[in-house]
Amino acid sequence: MISEVFRKGRDAKEASYVLAAASTAEKNQALAAIADGLVAHETDILAANAVDLQRAKAKGMASAMVDRLTLTKERIAAMAEGVRQVIALPDPAGVVLDEWDRPNGLHIRKVSVPLGVIAIIYESRPNVTVDAAVLCVKAGNACVLRGGSEAIASNTALAKVIRESLAAAGLPADAVNLIEDTDRALVKELLTLRRYIDLAIPRGGAGLIRMVVDTATVPCIETGSGVCHVYVDKDADLDMAVKIVENAKVSRPSTCNAMETLLVHRDVAQAFLKKLAPVMKADGVELRGDDEACQSSAMKAASDDDWATEYNALIMSVKVVGSLQEALDHIRRFSTHHSEAIITENKATAAAFQAAVDSAAVYVNASTRFTDGFEFGFGAEIGISTQKLHVRGPMGLEALVSYKYLVDGDGQVR
Amino acid sequence: MISEVFRKGRDAKEASYVLAAASTAEKNQALAAIADGLVAHETDILAANAVDLQRAKAKGMASAMVDRLTLTKERIAAMAEGVRQVIALPDPAGVVLDEWDRPNGLHIRKVSVPLGVIAIIYESRPNVTVDAAVLCVKAGNACVLRGGSEAIASNTALAKVIRESLAAAGLPADAVNLIEDTDRALVKELLTLRRYIDLAIPRGGAGLIRMVVDTATVPCIETGSGVCHVYVDKDADLDMAVKIVENAKVSRPSTCNAMETLLVHRDVAQAFLKKLAPVMKADGVELRGDDEACQSSAMKAASDDDWATEYNALIMSVKVVGSLQEALDHIRRFSTHHSEAIITENKATAAAFQAAVDSAAVYVNASTRFTDGFEFGFGAEIGISTQKLHVRGPMGLEALVSYKYLVDGDGQVR
Repeated sequence: MISEVFRKGRDAKEASYVLAAASTAEKNQALAAIADGLVAHETDILAANAVDLQRAKAKGMASAMVDRLTLTKERIAAMAEGVRQVIALPDPAGVVLDEWDRPNGLHIRKVSVPLGVIAIIYESRPNVTVDAAVLCVKAGNACVLRGGSEAIASNTALAKVIRESLAAAGLPADAVNLIEDTDRALVKELLTLRRYIDLAIPRGGAGLIRMVVDTATVPCIETGSGVCHVYVDKDADLDMAVKIVENAKVSRPSTCNAMETLLVHRDVAQAFLKKLAPVMKADGVELRGDDEACQSSAMKAASDDDWATEYNALIMSVKVVGSLQEALDHIRRFSTHHSEAIITENKATAAAFQAAVDSAAVYVNASTRFTDGFEFGFGAEIGISTQKLHVRGPMGLEALVSYKYLVDGDGQVR
Repeated sequence: MISEVFRKGRDAKEASYVLAAASTAEKNQALAAIADGLVAHETDILAANAVDLQRAKAKGMASAMVDRLTLTKERIAAMAEGVRQVIALPDPAGVVLDEWDRPNGLHIRKVSVPLGVIAIIYESRPNVTVDAAVLCVKAGNACVLRGGSEAIASNTALAKVIRESLAAAGLPADAVNLIEDTDRALVKELLTLRRYIDLAIPRGGAGLIRMVVDTATVPCIETGSGVCHVYVDKDADLDMAVKIVENAKVSRPSTCNAMETLLVHRDVAQAFLKKLAPVMKADGVELRGDDEACQSSAMKAASDDDWATEYNALIMSVKVVGSLQEALDHIRRFSTHHSEAIITENKATAAAFQAAVDSAAVYVNASTRFTDGFEFGFGAEIGISTQKLHVRGPMGLEALVSYKYLVDGDGQVR
């Protein structure tokens, strides 16, 4: 007997051929049907969500987690609106990226094409089910979704609406497949199903990402783990620096583009920390400093682990450095290659920082919080890549296509 | 005590920062020094190669393998000439790929950057040591090379010349590192050294590629396994088809872009095979057909395994199909997504074939043998990708770079 993962992988692959051949109009029609379907079936979706919520509360799930899991009429309307925004985006597949003639008369076209079947592994937020499915379909891909067991009833209800809407619009329901069996062993099967899966994308915390990267033999994209640094240079506008550090740490500390570590040049450390400390205190941020930072301003001592920690909370580590090079050395050692920023009025220092830092986004005089598909103007985001292959930084629809070469001849041989 | 792999990976990472900051002129100077060094040290290189050859002959290595392993004065001169050709290619790093302004005033630049440290795992051809090192350096990457144990003396001599030439030109010798310990366990260590290795590329046969893909937790690119098909449509120019099939099968059967399976439409099968059979016989090609092919022309019966086999030899499987769709179904089942061709005078059929076939290169009226970095005009080739992530088909220098976003602000917060 074949497993659910194998069967759905195989069905997704068959559907992917149909999706790849579908026109932009056909795909957009299906997306419109999904948006309408979500609103039309909101009662069913909320009923399923209530089952998940009841189980979560019975298990004593933390309230932040319960909030992530919760759907409301407004949240369903927002999901539907998100789908309609994707309709408006340009189709990333079928674009002639380049073309040229060879001396032997061959004409070569490089054309963007869907990847095929994409596996998405995610945690407790049911809206990822809709987001991921819709972005995959827009780019002409089929997908196999594996969400967290906490959200299984919600995800099953959402996947049902999506599949019925696809079929009603004339595309195969099997373009979107949810693994309903919550046995963890199935994740490994999915991540090694090279026969049918073209790409795996994890969406979630550091543990999930690490597990996917370690387990997958299918190509995968490492996403979203962020130990982000802000370096306040000796030539910084210190008032601007306070505003940016506060924003990068406080505006949404649970996100991967929030900062974790402040590096500050010795020449301005005392003056800067004097300005920063009361702001951070008012925001409820705990500071953990190296020896020199602790001397400059009253704060808890940082342990060696602090520098490598993504707090995802109102905690910030602080280190005083003697030079740009010392800041760069620290970033090289502890950065997760997500986003780093320098605050400086010195253009040469800014350029040196941008050239040397090996991260997806390197900012001058702006908050790391801008590393985001919408903030970059991509109109969508399927995650933030912290690896260097295929796609780096915020992943829009172009992350979900590959290309092939179409070569036209009239009898050429070699 | 740290292992050779860990130490060289770490040293390569340190060197990669210097390489990434090196100018195009500095990198080209180092390449010129390598070209000169190869010629200047040809006596040492040939002496080392003689050690490998003696061991190979003592072990009774097959003559084709011995030929791959053999270096001569002419082959060393050809290697040096190959290095000089790479100097002439444009630098793929440091290119502003895109830039735009956001409504909040942020200016975003997308700039190509080296990948960092690339591991190359290869077999018995010592020229790969030079090719791979030179392409990595040109793109600003450091590399860790792991060649076959049969070529260890040759590779060690070549790596010594390369490292000395780099140092003489003012770049770090550690930009190019050869693993000298031939213990197979070190390959696994290299392929899981996520801390230092940004990309692994296998260059060799199907067994090596499979091992790398299964073992690696670092990102890797699947390369070069090729079960390539030529489909002779009912609207084909049969004389052109004979020429193309002969070229695709016979011109160099050991390469991954050689064809393995002929699909021919029923309406023209008898006429086509009558033209083809004597040509193939004269070329010494063994044909293995399905029932219908065997009825049309005298040939051995194909087993089920034949359709999935990359012969790398003068053997070709032949299948008669009733329609384009039947040809597509066969290709979907057995292709390795490398290169496929249709021979037809019917433009609609050609376009349908190109749209439906999910391979890196899809030809109309030309030989599959053109899937090659030089034939495509890339001026270099580091392998042929048969996966869809990052790079597909022939990989030139652009396969060896990533990009990062440089974002300039004046105090923006979110």
